[in-house]
Amino acid sequence: MLESVEKIEKVSKSDFQRRVPELRSRLLDAQFALQRAKRPVIVIIAGMDGAGKGEVVHRLNEWLDPRGVDTNAFWAKTTEESERPRFWRYWRVLPSRNRIAIYFGSWYTGPIIRRVYGKVGRSQFRNQMEHVRFHENMLIEDGYVIVKIWLHLGRKAQRKRLRELEKQPIGFWRVNPTNWEHHSLYDEFANVSHTVMELTHTEAAPWNVLDAKSDATRDLAVGEILADAMETAAAKRKSIPKAEAHTNDRDKSVLENVDLSKKLGAKDYQKQLRKYQYQLDRLMWQAYERKRSAVLVFEGWDAAGKGSAIRRVTNALDPRLFRVIPVAAPTEEELSQHYLWRFWKHVPPGGRLTIFDRSWYGRVLVERIEQLASPTEWQRAFAEIRDFEQQLIDHGIMVSKFWLHISQDEQAKRFAKRENTPWKRHKITEEDWRNRAKWSEYETAVSDMVAETNTGAAPWHIVPGNDKRFARIAILKHVVEMFERQLATKGEDE
Amino acid sequence: MLESVEKIEKVSKSDFQRRVPELRSRLLDAQFALQRAKRPVIVIIAGMDGAGKGEVVHRLNEWLDPRGVDTNAFWAKTTEESERPRFWRYWRVLPSRNRIAIYFGSWYTGPIIRRVYGKVGRSQFRNQMEHVRFHENMLIEDGYVIVKIWLHLGRKAQRKRLRELEKQPIGFWRVNPTNWEHHSLYDEFANVSHTVMELTHTEAAPWNVLDAKSDATRDLAVGEILADAMETAAAKRKSIPKAEAHTNDRDKSVLENVDLSKKLGAKDYQKQLRKYQYQLDRLMWQAYERKRSAVLVFEGWDAAGKGSAIRRVTNALDPRLFRVIPVAAPTEEELSQHYLWRFWKHVPPGGRLTIFDRSWYGRVLVERIEQLASPTEWQRAFAEIRDFEQQLIDHGIMVSKFWLHISQDEQAKRFAKRENTPWKRHKITEEDWRNRAKWSEYETAVSDMVAETNTGAAPWHIVPGNDKRFARIAILKHVVEMFERQLATKGEDE
Repeated sequence: MLESVEKIEKVSKSDFQRRVPELRSRLLDAQFALQRAKRPVIVIIAGMDGAGKGEVVHRLNEWLDPRGVDTNAFWAKTTEESERPRFWRYWRVLPSRNRIAIYFGSWYTGPIIRRVYGKVGRSQFRNQMEHVRFHENMLIEDGYVIVKIWLHLGRKAQRKRLRELEKQPIGFWRVNPTNWEHHSLYDEFANVSHTVMELTHTEAAPWNVLDAKSDATRDLAVGEILADAMETAAAKRKSIPKAEAHTNDRDKSVLENVDLSKKLGAKDYQKQLRKYQYQLDRLMWQAYERKRSAVLVFEGWDAAGKGSAIRRVTNALDPRLFRVIPVAAPTEEELSQHYLWRFWKHVPPGGRLTIFDRSWYGRVLVERIEQLASPTEWQRAFAEIRDFEQQLIDHGIMVSKFWLHISQDEQAKRFAKRENTPWKRHKITEEDWRNRAKWSEYETAVSDMVAETNTGAAPWHIVPGNDKRFARIAILKHVVEMFERQLATKGEDE
Repeated sequence: MLESVEKIEKVSKSDFQRRVPELRSRLLDAQFALQRAKRPVIVIIAGMDGAGKGEVVHRLNEWLDPRGVDTNAFWAKTTEESERPRFWRYWRVLPSRNRIAIYFGSWYTGPIIRRVYGKVGRSQFRNQMEHVRFHENMLIEDGYVIVKIWLHLGRKAQRKRLRELEKQPIGFWRVNPTNWEHHSLYDEFANVSHTVMELTHTEAAPWNVLDAKSDATRDLAVGEILADAMETAAAKRKSIPKAEAHTNDRDKSVLENVDLSKKLGAKDYQKQLRKYQYQLDRLMWQAYERKRSAVLVFEGWDAAGKGSAIRRVTNALDPRLFRVIPVAAPTEEELSQHYLWRFWKHVPPGGRLTIFDRSWYGRVLVERIEQLASPTEWQRAFAEIRDFEQQLIDHGIMVSKFWLHISQDEQAKRFAKRENTPWKRHKITEEDWRNRAKWSEYETAVSDMVAETNTGAAPWHIVPGNDKRFARIAILKHVVEMFERQLATKGEDE
């Protein structure tokens, strides 16, 4: 692709002056149109050292309405960022649905540099690019507009530019030994960049490669590419390809085969509770010392005992080491983001535990059943969720997921009991009754969910919950075993 | 106060069982009542080592509805936190208006420990406590309920407790050499704690000191204190003492004496622009290397040229080193927080610049004039803003504030020009015309604002803006001088 750099005719100063007014109007109109349509935009400014990425960023801020623009310069990671999966920092600043984000540095920068310097191998690099592709595609399917600009400089042009920059008063500081080192690796950078484009040039998020030799020409070209892309997006409605909710012939055995008769006596319960809580306390501190973190997901029928099971886990732990995130209907702010955004926020730092009391699985449970997500959206979510959890795992985070299962009869009993207990009455609402009426739909949804997202590294545990004591101990045991297994296996090569 | 520890009668196990149900109902009722009233609650659990702070936190999470509770354990600061003023981490997790935050560790912990170990002197410590008092009072005036619990242990009881904890399987890890060291400093801790309470025991946020010898008694007492406090708060309406908008006899000279005839020729402008941008570029990199950050505030009449003046500053800078925060009407999320919360979020990390395009001064300008803040609220805001900026300054952040001034005639001309320029039309709205009609009210508000918040370390610069070139250079010059002065003076003792 780099060979096919768009040869743009050099623009004269008077041409530039003449064309800018129209361009600005186009950019602003498109910006406001997308704002109204709640379509967020991500503009990635990438390219060679000395190609003027910073100048382009300044220019776009001048031409667009800056009140709707966030410029994100991704530079050295903070500790908070480096303790999380690689994409956490991007989720952190993902633009909400009425904004434009300009990325100066992006998910391409690190991989390219590490590849050039031979710090990642060919296949790992390809995996990284595949994940970038997945990530971009996921955002696009959610309505994001992604515009990728590559500012190209030939070898000679780069040398000339770096020399010029050194001479200029402003920008003096911007040329440093690293720039010259990169220049000496010109071929390597060109090769790796070429591969990047081959791997990540998609129809929905194409690379726009342009010659950056002349400032005015470059800025005008970038502006026009952006205006075109935004206008095209504004003209098309967010395309949600219709997908039939596939008539599911998957059996519901996931829940049907659960043995709900399992019980545990009070004495045994106390003994085991003490044992596992003791172990968990120690294991969590070991994890803390080794900066290994963990995520637990709790889903289940209303009144299945999620809250009290979670407390049996947390009571073993120092409050400084964990957080419980209760998940309810999204707020206005959360709705103006990709649905995974509010969960990324709570990915734990090194050595901590986050417990989700309900989770991103709401996408394929309540949102599916209450038709808050379209069939396309919730079907797509399975892959998105697998990708999300894989990122946690790749970062060394332990993941376990629990579905607390009870029978319909047991639920009826518990609803009645809640209504008769003053300090439990608040737990039972209209919604619980509505959900109960949809028991069978939920059974299907749970079966699909488990079938689609039960992976080796992030397994589902279906826990029989008619007997609360049995359920709590079963969960504690799973958690303890997860810690033991994970701290044993990864201990050596951290 | 520690001598007057409430002697609570020890509760028997059966008593505990009997009293808990009623307590839980009270706690939940009060929690929901405050949720409905949009009153946030902060519960500070402090006290001696070994007094069971962690256990109390667990217990409150069990008794309250956990979906409305955030537990915040303030522990070692992250880099992101240590690069900001001391209270940034607390603002970061300030509960929104329908939530309860339990603080395990708080703004008391660090100061107490540093004082015991002699790392801060007496007067610095008193200043810290005075600021805590100010902070708590500010939150309370905004409707927050603050409940402060001090778990006391006598010297013997502490020793006994630490020994017991060492023997128990769970909690084993929680006794460490530091706990014993603190025990050996028992008198010092008791003294400092005593001083803390003397200095921060206020009517609105009193300390509740209680004997923590027995677990059940302690938990029950904490629960009852919390229930009492929440019930009292729920019974009272948020008390907004009426304050007359004091008839202001302050003259409006701040703006009247501005010489709007000042001009700068095009050639001079280009020359000086180049000079100051060059200097600023270098200075910003020096600041970056020395981890000194800066905050610039831009306020001014509509169409006074804030945006273009800001661009003349930012065009000099590497996009990685600054952020521009455009401030518009608060979102729903922002409205459910203290008004300063959304600005604290953007306090820059070490070595960076944040530019606010409109700011917290909206509280005493548009919110005052449009009656979005009551007279009490905006009058209180002057002290709150001074305190906020002082915290920035104490952390070594440079602060400058600009009011861009133009005449009414000049504004009329610019409005007309905007309406006739396609890519500027979006900048002019109904609101601008409404504000223009209130010119005189704004003059008064600006005069009050400058009089109340023009401090040596965070000065206001009233910039004549009828001539855009003059204004831009004047601002750049102020910014350059601020950097030069600050980097010179503080260079030695960083």
